[in-house]
Amino acid sequence: MSKKVLIVGGVAGGASTAARLRRVDEEAEIIIFEKGEHISFANCGLPYHIGEVIKERDKLLVQTPEAMEARFDIDVRVMNEVLSINRGNKEVKVKDWVKGEVYTESYDVLVLSPGADPIKPPLPGIDGKNIFTLRNIPDTDLIKGFVDDNKPENAVVVGAGYIGVEMAENLHHRGVKVSVVELAPQVLGPIDADMAAIVHNHMRTKGVDLHLSDGVKAFREEGDKTIVELQSGKEIKASLVVMSIGVKPSTKLAKEAGLELGETGAIKVNKHLQTSDESIYAIGDAIEVVDFVTKKPAHIPLAGPANKQGRIVANNLAGAKEKFVGTQGTAIAKVFDLTVAATGNNEKQLKEAGIDYQVSYTNSKNHAGYYPGAIPMTIKIIFTPDKGKLLGAQIVGYDGVDKRIDILATAIRFEKTVFDLQELELAYAPPFGSAKDPVNMAGFTAGNILKGMVDVIYWHELEDLSNDTIILDVREEVEVELGKIDGSINIPLNSLRDRLDELDKDKNIVIYCAVGLRGYIGARILIQHGFKKVKNLSGGYKLYKEIIN
Amino acid sequence: MSKKVLIVGGVAGGASTAARLRRVDEEAEIIIFEKGEHISFANCGLPYHIGEVIKERDKLLVQTPEAMEARFDIDVRVMNEVLSINRGNKEVKVKDWVKGEVYTESYDVLVLSPGADPIKPPLPGIDGKNIFTLRNIPDTDLIKGFVDDNKPENAVVVGAGYIGVEMAENLHHRGVKVSVVELAPQVLGPIDADMAAIVHNHMRTKGVDLHLSDGVKAFREEGDKTIVELQSGKEIKASLVVMSIGVKPSTKLAKEAGLELGETGAIKVNKHLQTSDESIYAIGDAIEVVDFVTKKPAHIPLAGPANKQGRIVANNLAGAKEKFVGTQGTAIAKVFDLTVAATGNNEKQLKEAGIDYQVSYTNSKNHAGYYPGAIPMTIKIIFTPDKGKLLGAQIVGYDGVDKRIDILATAIRFEKTVFDLQELELAYAPPFGSAKDPVNMAGFTAGNILKGMVDVIYWHELEDLSNDTIILDVREEVEVELGKIDGSINIPLNSLRDRLDELDKDKNIVIYCAVGLRGYIGARILIQHGFKKVKNLSGGYKLYKEIIN
Ligand SMILES: Cc1cc2nc3c(=O)[nH]c(=O)nc-3n(C[C@H](O)[C@H](O)[C@H](O)COP(=O)(O)OP(=O)(O)OC[C@H]3O[C@@H](n4cnc5c(N)ncnc54)[C@H](O)[C@@H]3O)c2cc1C
Ligand SMILES: Cc1cc2nc3c(=O)[nH]c(=O)nc-3n(C[C@H](O)[C@H](O)[C@H](O)COP(=O)(O)OP(=O)(O)OC[C@H]3O[C@@H](n4cnc5c(N)ncnc54)[C@H](O)[C@@H]3O)c2cc1C
Ligand SMILES: CC(C)(COP(=O)(O)OP(=O)(O)OC[C@H]1O[C@@H](n2cnc3c(N)ncnc32)[C@H](O)[C@@H]1OP(=O)(O)O)[C@@H](O)C(=O)NCCC(=O)NCCS
Ligand SMILES: CC(C)(COP(=O)(O)OP(=O)(O)OC[C@H]1O[C@@H](n2cnc3c(N)ncnc32)[C@H](O)[C@@H]1OP(=O)(O)O)[C@@H](O)C(=O)NCCC(=O)NCCS
Repeated sequence: MSKKVLIVGGVAGGASTAARLRRVDEEAEIIIFEKGEHISFANCGLPYHIGEVIKERDKLLVQTPEAMEARFDIDVRVMNEVLSINRGNKEVKVKDWVKGEVYTESYDVLVLSPGADPIKPPLPGIDGKNIFTLRNIPDTDLIKGFVDDNKPENAVVVGAGYIGVEMAENLHHRGVKVSVVELAPQVLGPIDADMAAIVHNHMRTKGVDLHLSDGVKAFREEGDKTIVELQSGKEIKASLVVMSIGVKPSTKLAKEAGLELGETGAIKVNKHLQTSDESIYAIGDAIEVVDFVTKKPAHIPLAGPANKQGRIVANNLAGAKEKFVGTQGTAIAKVFDLTVAATGNNEKQLKEAGIDYQVSYTNSKNHAGYYPGAIPMTIKIIFTPDKGKLLGAQIVGYDGVDKRIDILATAIRFEKTVFDLQELELAYAPPFGSAKDPVNMAGFTAGNILKGMVDVIYWHELEDLSNDTIILDVREEVEVELGKIDGSINIPLNSLRDRLDELDKDKNIVIYCAVGLRGYIGARILIQHGFKKVKNLSGGYKLYKEIIN
Repeated sequence: MSKKVLIVGGVAGGASTAARLRRVDEEAEIIIFEKGEHISFANCGLPYHIGEVIKERDKLLVQTPEAMEARFDIDVRVMNEVLSINRGNKEVKVKDWVKGEVYTESYDVLVLSPGADPIKPPLPGIDGKNIFTLRNIPDTDLIKGFVDDNKPENAVVVGAGYIGVEMAENLHHRGVKVSVVELAPQVLGPIDADMAAIVHNHMRTKGVDLHLSDGVKAFREEGDKTIVELQSGKEIKASLVVMSIGVKPSTKLAKEAGLELGETGAIKVNKHLQTSDESIYAIGDAIEVVDFVTKKPAHIPLAGPANKQGRIVANNLAGAKEKFVGTQGTAIAKVFDLTVAATGNNEKQLKEAGIDYQVSYTNSKNHAGYYPGAIPMTIKIIFTPDKGKLLGAQIVGYDGVDKRIDILATAIRFEKTVFDLQELELAYAPPFGSAKDPVNMAGFTAGNILKGMVDVIYWHELEDLSNDTIILDVREEVEVELGKIDGSINIPLNSLRDRLDELDKDKNIVIYCAVGLRGYIGARILIQHGFKKVKNLSGGYKLYKEIIN
């Protein structure tokens, strides 16, 4: 007998489940309930439509209910909201918002992919008419309509996660002057503060006002403007406010039906993506996943995992026993001219999880330096201090960042080490890479640290140097003239061997260059000439300057 | 006591060995012998300097002897050719071409990185004044000088490997009309003929004349032109001829010294890169490597492996016991607007090695289709028919090809399967990828074949269909109007379920769409409705048309 499968939510997770399920099971009765007007829309494209980068609204609609019915023989019910689940009877109660009716529908299996809701904290004035959140097409229409009609001069984006930053950029495209307010001391939580510093500098050069370590206290209206009152006492007057401080998993249905929630507040599922009721599966932004690196519970709302979970659930409904083994949080964003990407855990997460780690920074060009258009990226990799197993990676740069984060994401997925990175044989021709790819280079550099070839010191440790530490700058004089670390002395690398006697072998020496490469070579020279206490500044002056800027 | 290390060849492998060796061993006496004028030059950039894409000649010189001496304390002797090795005395005989003197130099360890020489077959007229090969800076100066001075109207490039194709493009940039002559029926040997077909079509649209399956019989001069006589009887008149039919490993020194050569004719080395004389190491284009996939001997001359081998040898000289485990042949080329890339083995190689394999083609956009600039690439993956272990991959497309080949190269390096590709969590935001990345998609599609979800048929099998086979085109009518497979009938996918009775369940059915996706969905519908003999055309009509064009 054929199964009756009900799916709550018709976008990333829900539509993917339905499509795959039909391919594996032509007989199943499949009904998608979607409370909104649209299924299968491109959530991730919404900011770009507001910014008119994606000009046609239709492009956001990847599938329509009609096409989904024709191609996949799926009963797609938009404007139908599932109100409650009766687990005993295996039924859901549904409100048809078009007909204004409530009805029940029975199921053999229920799949929940209700997504997440933008967080709207109960701040005074939060319901003001100029204040928006962004999750779906109607939200997009509202914000875009507002921009089209009112040509706002300025906007405040509250919250600087990926969506906030994308909104800042897209409003900027539309000629809006943007202020970003963020409670944390940095934008883009998935990367660490050091890497975020590069992003801050870039956003500022684009004219975005950043208000970091500051939160919204209240909103108040003043004529057709909104005054955003910050906790610091600052006030920003804006024509438009977009709230993007994060999402919370849509758990109402599940909770009311007595399904177990996890410690993150999202729906708890097992490896096969079943909830505490084995007839009910849940996927996507609504669920708690296993962090692939720490193996701890986490809530990581991303489209790739949602789509893949949908496919796994469909397979399992057709009799497979596939597992979803965890989410590693691979994510990327275009931030004006920059590309910012991360995978695995960052330092903040590892500290919280109590996991020991070591960090290494490198700075490499996207492709051969001698081929036109070469441009550097800053790579941070994080790995275990014993075996060098990769725990996480972050990259900020331009062209070629997406490639390197994906290679690193792949290495992390396969639980590989920095030494494995050294051996990767990646495609090299001058327009695409280097004989030693940036990923190889990150592996070499980290490997050298682990093998004791060189000791490193990090930007944040420079504050605590003992007074008699020698800070040795091995860059060329012309570079030093453009800026240096206070108190450093300069001996260009190529003359270091000849000038060793200018340095005291018994003192602590911190060596640095632009990015760490020459500092490393210099350190090797010093160490092998009997200097015992030498440390190379990981990431070099370039990173240091971005951070202390 | 410190070691005395002599290095023969001062470019990719040699210079890398020297630099790393100095970093691990400050005491070693290191001498580089380079018979040419330059060390550390960018071989791979040479075609682009001729094409004036890399405008400044200086950019090709990554390191100079002076800088190498200053930074690494290395005795760099350019214009010094090693003439012979006396293994008994551990000495080499060297000719200093500047002083015109011959001298000997002793060694503790000798490292050979003499590279490879362009093949110049003994054809009548091969030494004509308009006929060039390209390996180093003087070659480049000659060709570029010729183009600058003579503004040749047309050129013949003989041999269409990576260098030949790059030369064709770069001469084209210079306004030269280019004919390419290639003995094989296809350009770019590392990819298979099917994928090469796409490249052929592209090169032809750019105005390049391709003479495939044809070789040069002889050259003869006619005034200041060269007549290239082909085996087919055709004759091409050209102002300039570039020979790029491949390279042969520089083995003269090794052979004369009685070192063992491998079955490919290149220098034989063990896993630690030692030759049959344990005091002599060899690396780079001169050596025989292990093919990473087949584990058989191979000659794969590429810069990445040469550089990495240099580093491994340096480590081993300093006491490590590192292994070079093989070369997988990851390579890439820009061919006009196209990017062409390969990693692992191709069908030709696997057939020759007698290894069973299965193939799957997909066609995916570089990033979300709804974001501007989305453009498709054709991906071919090859894997074992049992477990789906990846054996090779080839991609032809535009933006984003380099990223996907590197992810696949990484998966091959880690000996993973098509099922592992399904789980990769790659970075997704609309400008960079899709929630299901092209690499995931390749994994899904191949996985479906292996799991028996669908049977596939390949373009080359369409010739041998039995007469009563139904060829079912499930594309939309508008697509069919632009071209279809002879004898096919059309039922658009979205109406397939309603029109099943138009098809005979007992007949063989070959189903196809543009790229294979709708064909697959259609096949699933048919199979589940009792059709037993259904095959989906892998790669779809798009690939088929490129090939039979
Ligand atoms: C602006 C924006 C940009 C983003 N950019 C990226 C990006 O670049 N990369 C990335 O990986 N991720 C991005 N995401 C996140 C990504 O869209 C989500 O991770 C993904 O859509 C989650 O899929 P889901 O199926 O869980 O939820 P959704 O896709 O949100 O689908 C849930 C659906 O369920 C419906 N629903 C909820 N409750 C009910 C109910 N009771 N009855 C009926 N229907 C119900 C909702 O109306 C909704 O349409 C972005 C999200 C947004 C909003
Ligand atoms: C035009 C061109 C484009 C290329 N493009 C790419 C590409 O895009 N990607 C890629 O991966 N690879 C590419 N390659 C291949 C790459 O350059 C080689 O794989 C790499 O340089 C091999 O390093 P090697 O050290 O073995 O040889 P080489 O780099 O060639 O160095 C060998 C040196 O040894 C010297 N020598 C030889 N015999 C003696 C002797 N007896 N005494 C003293 N010196 C001696 C030679 O003069 C030469 O300079 C390209 C090569 C060429 C020519
Ligand atoms: C539109 C949507 C319903 C499509 O679901 P889908 O049919 O599973 O996905 P696709 O159209 O990408 O097709 C993938 C299928 O085609 C197959 N396929 C792809 N290319 C193929 C080819 N060339 N030959 C054969 N099969 C191919 C894949 O194997 C896969 O099938 P499988 O899952 O049965 O293995 C769903 O992705 C969706 O709703 N997307 C929009 C919402 C969203 O994801 N938002 C967040 C991101 S903005
Ligand atoms: C120029 C050449 C001699 C450089 O050799 P090299 O010094 O080993 O290579 P690089 O300059 O890339 O530096 C790599 C080293 O810097 C280290 N490094 C790189 N970035 C670093 C950073 N940010 N911090 C610390 N160390 C860093 C790496 O770990 C590596 O050192 P290791 O091998 O000791 O681990 C050699 O690559 C060469 O001759 N190239 C031109 C010829 C050629 O390759 N042709 C073919 C391709 S066109």
